[in-house]
Amino acid sequence: MVETVLESKKNNFLWLDLVEPTEEELQDVAGRFGLHTTSLEDCLDPIHQPKFEKVQNTVFIILRAYDTRSRLQTDSIHKITRKLAIFLGNNFIITVHRSELDFVNELKDEWKNRCARDEKSESNLIILLGLVKGAVYSYSLAFEKLEEAIEGYEGKIFTNDDTPVNIKEIHEFRSKVSAIRRVLRQLYDVILKIDDYTDEFAPVYQDIRERLERYLMLTDALREASNDILNTHISLASHRTNEVIRVLTIFSVFFLPLTFIVGIYGMNFKYMPELKTTYGYPSTWLVMVLITAGIYTWFKRRGWLK
Amino acid sequence: MVETVLESKKNNFLWLDLVEPTEEELQDVAGRFGLHTTSLEDCLDPIHQPKFEKVQNTVFIILRAYDTRSRLQTDSIHKITRKLAIFLGNNFIITVHRSELDFVNELKDEWKNRCARDEKSESNLIILLGLVKGAVYSYSLAFEKLEEAIEGYEGKIFTNDDTPVNIKEIHEFRSKVSAIRRVLRQLYDVILKIDDYTDEFAPVYQDIRERLERYLMLTDALREASNDILNTHISLASHRTNEVIRVLTIFSVFFLPLTFIVGIYGMNFKYMPELKTTYGYPSTWLVMVLITAGIYTWFKRRGWLK
Amino acid sequence: MVETVLESKKNNFLWLDLVEPTEEELQDVAGRFGLHTTSLEDCLDPIHQPKFEKVQNTVFIILRAYDTRSRLQTDSIHKITRKLAIFLGNNFIITVHRSELDFVNELKDEWKNRCARDEKSESNLIILLGLVKGAVYSYSLAFEKLEEAIEGYEGKIFTNDDTPVNIKEIHEFRSKVSAIRRVLRQLYDVILKIDDYTDEFAPVYQDIRERLERYLMLTDALREASNDILNTHISLASHRTNEVIRVLTIFSVFFLPLTFIVGIYGMNFKYMPELKTTYGYPSTWLVMVLITAGIYTWFKRRGWLK
Amino acid sequence: MVETVLESKKNNFLWLDLVEPTEEELQDVAGRFGLHTTSLEDCLDPIHQPKFEKVQNTVFIILRAYDTRSRLQTDSIHKITRKLAIFLGNNFIITVHRSELDFVNELKDEWKNRCARDEKSESNLIILLGLVKGAVYSYSLAFEKLEEAIEGYEGKIFTNDDTPVNIKEIHEFRSKVSAIRRVLRQLYDVILKIDDYTDEFAPVYQDIRERLERYLMLTDALREASNDILNTHISLASHRTNEVIRVLTIFSVFFLPLTFIVGIYGMNFKYMPELKTTYGYPSTWLVMVLITAGIYTWFKRRGWLK
Amino acid sequence: MVETVLESKKNNFLWLDLVEPTEEELQDVAGRFGLHTTSLEDCLDPIHQPKFEKVQNTVFIILRAYDTRSRLQTDSIHKITRKLAIFLGNNFIITVHRSELDFVNELKDEWKNRCARDEKSESNLIILLGLVKGAVYSYSLAFEKLEEAIEGYEGKIFTNDDTPVNIKEIHEFRSKVSAIRRVLRQLYDVILKIDDYTDEFAPVYQDIRERLERYLMLTDALREASNDILNTHISLASHRTNEVIRVLTIFSVFFLPLTFIVGIYGMNFKYMPELKTTYGYPSTWLVMVLITAGIYTWFKRRGWLK
Ligand SMILES: [Mg+2]
Ligand SMILES: [Mg+2]
Ligand SMILES: [Mg+2]
Ligand SMILES: [Mg+2]
Ligand SMILES: [Mg+2]
Ligand SMILES: [Mg+2]
Ligand SMILES: [Mg+2]
Ligand SMILES: [Mg+2]
Ligand SMILES: [Mg+2]
Ligand SMILES: [Mg+2]
Ligand SMILES: [Mg+2]
Ligand SMILES: [Mg+2]
Ligand SMILES: [Mg+2]
Ligand SMILES: [Mg+2]
Ligand SMILES: [Mg+2]
Ligand SMILES: [Mg+2]
Ligand SMILES: [Mg+2]
Ligand SMILES: [Mg+2]
Ligand SMILES: [Mg+2]
Ligand SMILES: [Mg+2]
Ligand SMILES: [Mg+2]
Ligand SMILES: [Mg+2]
Ligand SMILES: [Mg+2]
Ligand SMILES: [Mg+2]
Ligand SMILES: [Mg+2]
Ligand SMILES: [Mg+2]
Ligand SMILES: [Mg+2]
Ligand SMILES: [Mg+2]
Ligand SMILES: [Mg+2]
Ligand SMILES: [Mg+2]
Ligand SMILES: [Mg+2]
Repeated sequence: MVETVLESKKNNFLWLDLVEPTEEELQDVAGRFGLHTTSLEDCLDPIHQPKFEKVQNTVFIILRAYDTRSRLQTDSIHKITRKLAIFLGNNFIITVHRSELDFVNELKDEWKNRCARDEKSESNLIILLGLVKGAVYSYSLAFEKLEEAIEGYEGKIFTNDDTPVNIKEIHEFRSKVSAIRRVLRQLYDVILKIDDYTDEFAPVYQDIRERLERYLMLTDALREASNDILNTHISLASHRTNEVIRVLTIFSVFFLPLTFIVGIYGMNFKYMPELKTTYGYPSTWLVMVLITAGIYTWFKRRGWLK
Repeated sequence: MVETVLESKKNNFLWLDLVEPTEEELQDVAGRFGLHTTSLEDCLDPIHQPKFEKVQNTVFIILRAYDTRSRLQTDSIHKITRKLAIFLGNNFIITVHRSELDFVNELKDEWKNRCARDEKSESNLIILLGLVKGAVYSYSLAFEKLEEAIEGYEGKIFTNDDTPVNIKEIHEFRSKVSAIRRVLRQLYDVILKIDDYTDEFAPVYQDIRERLERYLMLTDALREASNDILNTHISLASHRTNEVIRVLTIFSVFFLPLTFIVGIYGMNFKYMPELKTTYGYPSTWLVMVLITAGIYTWFKRRGWLK
Repeated sequence: MVETVLESKKNNFLWLDLVEPTEEELQDVAGRFGLHTTSLEDCLDPIHQPKFEKVQNTVFIILRAYDTRSRLQTDSIHKITRKLAIFLGNNFIITVHRSELDFVNELKDEWKNRCARDEKSESNLIILLGLVKGAVYSYSLAFEKLEEAIEGYEGKIFTNDDTPVNIKEIHEFRSKVSAIRRVLRQLYDVILKIDDYTDEFAPVYQDIRERLERYLMLTDALREASNDILNTHISLASHRTNEVIRVLTIFSVFFLPLTFIVGIYGMNFKYMPELKTTYGYPSTWLVMVLITAGIYTWFKRRGWLK
Repeated sequence: MVETVLESKKNNFLWLDLVEPTEEELQDVAGRFGLHTTSLEDCLDPIHQPKFEKVQNTVFIILRAYDTRSRLQTDSIHKITRKLAIFLGNNFIITVHRSELDFVNELKDEWKNRCARDEKSESNLIILLGLVKGAVYSYSLAFEKLEEAIEGYEGKIFTNDDTPVNIKEIHEFRSKVSAIRRVLRQLYDVILKIDDYTDEFAPVYQDIRERLERYLMLTDALREASNDILNTHISLASHRTNEVIRVLTIFSVFFLPLTFIVGIYGMNFKYMPELKTTYGYPSTWLVMVLITAGIYTWFKRRGWLK
Repeated sequence: MVETVLESKKNNFLWLDLVEPTEEELQDVAGRFGLHTTSLEDCLDPIHQPKFEKVQNTVFIILRAYDTRSRLQTDSIHKITRKLAIFLGNNFIITVHRSELDFVNELKDEWKNRCARDEKSESNLIILLGLVKGAVYSYSLAFEKLEEAIEGYEGKIFTNDDTPVNIKEIHEFRSKVSAIRRVLRQLYDVILKIDDYTDEFAPVYQDIRERLERYLMLTDALREASNDILNTHISLASHRTNEVIRVLTIFSVFFLPLTFIVGIYGMNFKYMPELKTTYGYPSTWLVMVLITAGIYTWFKRRGWLK
């Protein structure tokens, strides 16, 4: 579908929006504006990473915005983000995408209203910055969800209530953060290259870049936090194993000799002098008490008790 | 609240301090001094990271100073630091913050006194450096606390008294250090950009930068130290588990065969020739002593005893 | 075997393809085109890494393409990739390789057809880019296999069915990814140097470079994913050991004292007053029940049950 | 204490050495030579890191030399190194330090002797290089001790005699290496900046720089070696735990069923037919031998024996 | 020993080779050719790292070649490599080394033969490249041994036969690789600086550099491979411990309750009603079978059996 969003004959300016274009529509537009074949291929490749390319006088940009409908259900960057291709010429801007994108629609509405009010501020640069801003800010929802998740994990592990954390879940969390970091890194490379085109709008541009820098730093913090949770989990688990084994050892060491001793006098030999003596039974108890006391002292010195 | 800290008509110079300004106050000031919209938005965003921006002739800086009242009770950088926004023009400096900041108040008092004594040294650059210095030096209290904490942990783990270290606490400590490091890194980027404005005050500037470099290095050292404590803890725990299990094994290996043997002669079969012989009981003891000696030798050779 | 793929006397242009050349053939060609001795040595070295070299007016390039017949059966880069050497002069291009390479054959066919149709587009640069593209795109098959493998591992570890993952297999997987990453890194260095020669074909060149960048990022993702699987595996294993040991300890702690008690009254001493009393047996049961209840309470408080 | 080491009226040259100067002495010297206030503060700060600063025509340098009396008893860089501040002007050099430094004294003696012999070679640059060389070479003693220590650890862990290594000691060792590395890194930054002042003495300068580079590389090697020792220790400990547990399991699995069987026939039921039969006892032995053989075979197949 | 390898009066060219020179010989040569004192010191320092220095018109280079007689018996870089110092002037080249070096001798023989045949190609640059090539290629033997070793380790760990790998040996292997990597890194820095002197011999130079780059990459691969082996070893060990402990737990959990039950009826109380009943013994068996079945079901559900 090819939609003419803005057309200003006076200023000789045009914004075309192609939503899920057929190959013919694309070829047609390409012919009119002299777009390069390889750019068209990139437009049609749904998994293409963000890029910035200048072919003669046309700038070709691919952005990936967070798909607010994805709910982060996977760590595949192609499933949680959506591609927006942009061609920027001297007197035109062409946007190409496969599905409706909320932030593109909002920008289109905004500009249609402006033009209705006959404002003459149209400029391909400010529209480009509007699109880039929309794409970057789209990730705010993803980070809200990720921060909520990490706080949940931290609550579980750092408070004293022993709800177990789900190791697999945290690993998946970290995978998602890594995937988002990778796409933001590429987006950042693209945005750094846009700098040359933004002189009069420099503060707007810097605002977008700073936001992205904040997100990149946030991914670092989230990765560190998830690593911390996993490491703490392992530390605590090994600490708990240690404690469990200590209890096992203490009980075994106390009872193994005692059980052996009572076993001796459970034997049925005809000639066992001890069995006949009056003090055999109490002496055996005495020996067992002494052994227990000895082991107790030994453990105490090693600091294994309490 | 808009306060005029300094006003010098002769030198055509002005320092405005806005504490928790209403949006109208901010808009009003923005109008008088031609401040950019995006800068105003950043002023109102309480979680904005440190930044440096030049719009036309006005420099816009955001600093984050350590909030001495926070007591490092969280690793959220927004809760342990406070934002200070600065606009620096040719003949004015405007400071914007949401709450009273000790170091800003001190600087204001200092300058009011100077002007009372009619000194003519006012300059937006030296005021800027005073603010930056105040922000950077504010972290000294944080580092005092962090160093005290790490020394406590090191004392516990590296001395022989076995007070257990709290793994979770050290992980939280490391989170805080990471958070502070991140904000100091950004502050450092800002301070590097201020360099171009400090020719005549270069030594003052270098003093501030060196202090920040020392803090950055200190965060490295603190992180390394906390990692060391955690790793040592894990090493010691695994070493202790090993020891505990060895004791368990030694006791079990000694007593399992003996308990089995005494069990044999505890059986009640009618026809058990050994039970009737005179030397059955002492022979059993002999066998048990021999087995024990055999196991002892075997353990000795393996080096598992002591 | 020396094959003349293209020869255009009008344009004074020549493409020679040498498949498994004898040393004489190579020397002969070297003599005609003034190729350097060290380049010839590199041509004959089957394990040479990718390189880019300019000797006087001749560019000498070595590429390594994925050998689609290797099926990734090893992590030796020499066994899963194949070398293609290219000499690029002003009016000639010479390709040297030891075995038939699919992508070279396809390019040869394409160009022969073009020339049959008398198109005059021949240019050593576009042929070079065709060869580089072929080499880079050859890795797509490798990545298909690797992504399939990693999804298999992830399925096993992150779903609840407990099919064990093969640790050794994942380590070998990671070795392969590392090996491929290394060769792609070198290929990338070569491709960056080709940039200077591609002005009019810049979009084609950028397309190849972007593909390689995507592959490099993919190797990062694959390595991270395999690390995640291995770490998750270790976490789960240590968690499982912990659980097993807890069960062992619980059972031992319950039964060790009981077995000791019943052992006491299994002793055959003549004078054991308890044995004669009417309530000896039920009292023993009572003691055992109390001990069991005590241990149960203790475990319950520690949270070791369930 | 202010000492005039060299004074040459002919060459208009002066070397002042201030050992533990009072603030007045320092202020006085500062007044004569126009030293900056922030530099004076740095002189008085005992924990200041190495630095290089140029204020107008005066170069201000802080070095930290290894304190040969510290014997590496701590990992605090302030306790194992000593500060030397240097002011370098066109016709003077001023050294400031809080305690006597051996290498400074040696250099002073050397120069006093030279001047006694009326040599005219005095130059602030060659004196500066002498001081820097002294500071850098002072670390040789530290590295001697560190290398000796690491060789001791390596001997313990890599030879077959099982003297246990002290984990805490190695962690402390690594802390010291890290601390020294950090100060050497800063010293290196300072030394790189001195390069601009050393044209005619370039070989002397390069000699110092190379020595420092060798030390930096040595810290890398020492850290790697200590990491290796710690990792090997953990590997060996986990290997030993594995072995110990295997022995425990083997013994338990052999004796648990046997002890159960002999327990059965130790029961005192009135009606137990087996007890009365003539072959009850030998049959029980047979069963026990068969069970033992079965378990033995099972273990053998699993490869747990030997 | 000072040997004049080449002397060409016509071309005013000289190659001096000093093998284990006395200090006088060295001083003498230094005097004739104006060599700097610090360079002489470096010549005499047997552990000096590779370096490149230009003093006036003389280039001073130190290389370290692999000592083929060392057989990698240590990870000390000074014991497995040998130093070669080179002075390169406009019309002379001087080589200094403490022992005979095979590649130097070969080069000397080659050049003596050439000159005998009166070839006039002598040039200090081509001789320098010959020496550098010899030094770099000398490491090929080291890598052959290292690759052989790593393949042995990989064979042991990744095949199913359970020959144990020697952890200490692999750690020592990794130390050696690290040591070699460090010296190759320094050699690489030296070789990069030689680049400026090699215009006409660029292909020869690039050949040497590529070889060194291949070796550097090989050290990366060897380190990764050894890390992989160590990590796999740890994974497998922890997996095996898990399995052993599971077997122990299964046996204990099965037999602990049974042994307790048979112990009960082994008690000698006068009044134990169960002992007198006809069905006491079979009932006990029934209870034991039921308990065993219950535990079996429980284990089955947990998936601990097989
Ligand atoms: Mg990850
Ligand atoms: Mg991932
Ligand atoms: Mg990444
Ligand atoms: Mg960051
Ligand atoms: Mg970042
Ligand atoms: Mg980062
Ligand atoms: Mg952290
Ligand atoms: Mg954190
Ligand atoms: Mg960080
Ligand atoms: Mg640092
Ligand atoms: Mg730092
Ligand atoms: Mg750092
Ligand atoms: Mg690997
Ligand atoms: Mg590998
Ligand atoms: Mg690598
Ligand atoms: Mg990347
Ligand atoms: Mg990459
Ligand atoms: Mg990367
Ligand atoms: Mg780890
Ligand atoms: Mg450390
Ligand atoms: Mg430290
Ligand atoms: Mg460090
Ligand atoms: Mg190094
Ligand atoms: Mg280094
Ligand atoms: Mg390094
Ligand atoms: Mg590690
Ligand atoms: Mg090592
Ligand atoms: Mg290294
Ligand atoms: Mg590499
Ligand atoms: Mg490399
Ligand atoms: Mg590398």
